[in-house]
Amino acid sequence: MPKPAHRRITIVDVARHAQVSTTAVSKVLRNAYGASPAMRAKVQQAIDELGYRPSAAARGLRGQTYTIGVMIPELRNLFFADILDGITAQLGDTAYQVLLAPGCNGEKEEARVIEAMIDRSMDGLVLIAPVSSRTRLNNVARSVPTVVVGRHGSSTAYDTVTDDDVAGAALVVEHLAGLGHRRIAHIEHHETDPVRLLEMPNAQRANGYRDAMREHGLADQIDIASTSYTHQGGYLGAKQLLSRDQRPTAIFAGADVVALGALEAISEAGLSVPGDVSVVGYDNSALAAFGPISLTSVDQDGRQMGANAARLLVDRIADRDRRTAHVKLSPTLVVRRTTAGPARAAAPRPAPDPAATRTPTDG
Amino acid sequence: MPKPAHRRITIVDVARHAQVSTTAVSKVLRNAYGASPAMRAKVQQAIDELGYRPSAAARGLRGQTYTIGVMIPELRNLFFADILDGITAQLGDTAYQVLLAPGCNGEKEEARVIEAMIDRSMDGLVLIAPVSSRTRLNNVARSVPTVVVGRHGSSTAYDTVTDDDVAGAALVVEHLAGLGHRRIAHIEHHETDPVRLLEMPNAQRANGYRDAMREHGLADQIDIASTSYTHQGGYLGAKQLLSRDQRPTAIFAGADVVALGALEAISEAGLSVPGDVSVVGYDNSALAAFGPISLTSVDQDGRQMGANAARLLVDRIADRDRRTAHVKLSPTLVVRRTTAGPARAAAPRPAPDPAATRTPTDG
Repeated sequence: MPKPAHRRITIVDVARHAQVSTTAVSKVLRNAYGASPAMRAKVQQAIDELGYRPSAAARGLRGQTYTIGVMIPELRNLFFADILDGITAQLGDTAYQVLLAPGCNGEKEEARVIEAMIDRSMDGLVLIAPVSSRTRLNNVARSVPTVVVGRHGSSTAYDTVTDDDVAGAALVVEHLAGLGHRRIAHIEHHETDPVRLLEMPNAQRANGYRDAMREHGLADQIDIASTSYTHQGGYLGAKQLLSRDQRPTAIFAGADVVALGALEAISEAGLSVPGDVSVVGYDNSALAAFGPISLTSVDQDGRQMGANAARLLVDRIADRDRRTAHVKLSPTLVVRRTTAGPARAAAPRPAPDPAATRTPTDG
Repeated sequence: MPKPAHRRITIVDVARHAQVSTTAVSKVLRNAYGASPAMRAKVQQAIDELGYRPSAAARGLRGQTYTIGVMIPELRNLFFADILDGITAQLGDTAYQVLLAPGCNGEKEEARVIEAMIDRSMDGLVLIAPVSSRTRLNNVARSVPTVVVGRHGSSTAYDTVTDDDVAGAALVVEHLAGLGHRRIAHIEHHETDPVRLLEMPNAQRANGYRDAMREHGLADQIDIASTSYTHQGGYLGAKQLLSRDQRPTAIFAGADVVALGALEAISEAGLSVPGDVSVVGYDNSALAAFGPISLTSVDQDGRQMGANAARLLVDRIADRDRRTAHVKLSPTLVVRRTTAGPARAAAPRPAPDPAATRTPTDG
């Protein structure tokens, strides 16, 4: 146990120091009726001199803790950092402190993290791209104000903020078809659960891709490598696609990190981007904008998503019975140097490799 | 205020449900002497049926909250994600929950975030690369068990975990000098505060660079661009260095993100890497390992740093009066494709640019 020297200052210390009763201190702290200006001054002086701060734990027992918990599934996904920036900017100079619960991989870990945040009496939760069941999310939202970001749905228990993933995929296909591509392939995150196939952004991007291919009369060209939204998933997905009898002239990767893996596989196969294969990512992360990569990518405004989530959450904390809102933002396409018309395949171009000393491997 | 339907289950509900006194429930919860096995079974059944969990806020008033706060200055620095992985892995299946306080830029914001964590009765803090004054850190550590990561020092109030930054810089100079380079320049993070010049990793890297240059008989070649540890800082620093009458044949960037900015400036200047200029980073982040970048970089084992920090913190929570420990880990150099001998400058090489259609700009 801590020794007295380490003990935190309490209301009792303040009362003793100010030579007033604890009730009087409590009144001043609560800004309650019946505390005279002289009493306020006396107590405030003691508070300042001792460096007393009312404990959030103690406040938690009486009401709010002014803590917003944000569950972030993967710290290495820079898009999530954008969302977080939007949340903290929106909360700005409010009394709310944002605390992140990191590292969720799968439903079990996610349940543990959510419980931990509820257990610490957080006033509200922002869950980014949760994988829990819909029932579970509804239960969480009934026990604490909750906003879900990056997962579609129409819950009456929690608000949601999403980007229109179907529209984003359509932008990609439209861009590539407009450049003259027909063999446009897609790398998706493998998904089988029926609810997730409805609600997860990755599933909606794959659906949007299929729909848009049909709209452009390219139904017979639909070709999907089903791996995962990771660098490795992109690498393996692109290897699959490049080994087809007729390889695609353009690859739409479902996320920037997937596109990076695809770029690596294409480079290893001795092919150039965009000369031999055009590549499009999704998220417009800092990596996509990074000069030597310069990836064409779909931009979801992460900051705006985060700001919307924070606004909805603060409103929900103030009124738990208001109707749930479902905000869907429109994506845009940022065209950079990894896409060009398929005709350019005729002209040999340098591989996207700073020191291209590798020989083509079995691609 | 929440309606009763949203109210969390309390010890009173458990007592009522089990038809025992709240004192009895409390005894069972505290595992105290005097609770019969029958009583334990009855209370446990009520706890299970109601889904009761003792509130962390309530626990906080009596003792531990089992919450570790980690202050992380920048979510976009992937090295910090490695440190965090090490912390969470080390805490593994303990009762401790890690919560991150994100986004500190400068002393004032840092003070606010640290206060917020103390205010929420966290059991211990891990401060990653804090910029606060030494006095301030000592005061924090006296009020809550604290481990400082990535900042040198020999405080008797808090434990530290660092990587040997002087040794890391020496590895870089040794590697480049060994390849035959003499004009080896450095991009540092600008620093003037005397304490920070002693304790911050960036300052120690710059010192290590100077020392190693002297040791290799290259004192007259010491050339430092003083910008910042950001992508932009690397870009501007490299532009400065490339505009020298005699431009460097090798650039040691103080961080990977700085090296990326430098690569961009070198590419814009129409120069190749490593043909015209070798580039070395620091951190061995995922970006450095990424194939098309393939950056030679100093590896600090972030996971091991995090694991050490978590171990020290748990020990400190258990015994606040133990001697402080200062763990310093040894870095290694990971050689990739951005470094080569200066002789190779004779042979023209492709620029590190996937679609190098840009013309050289004023470099």
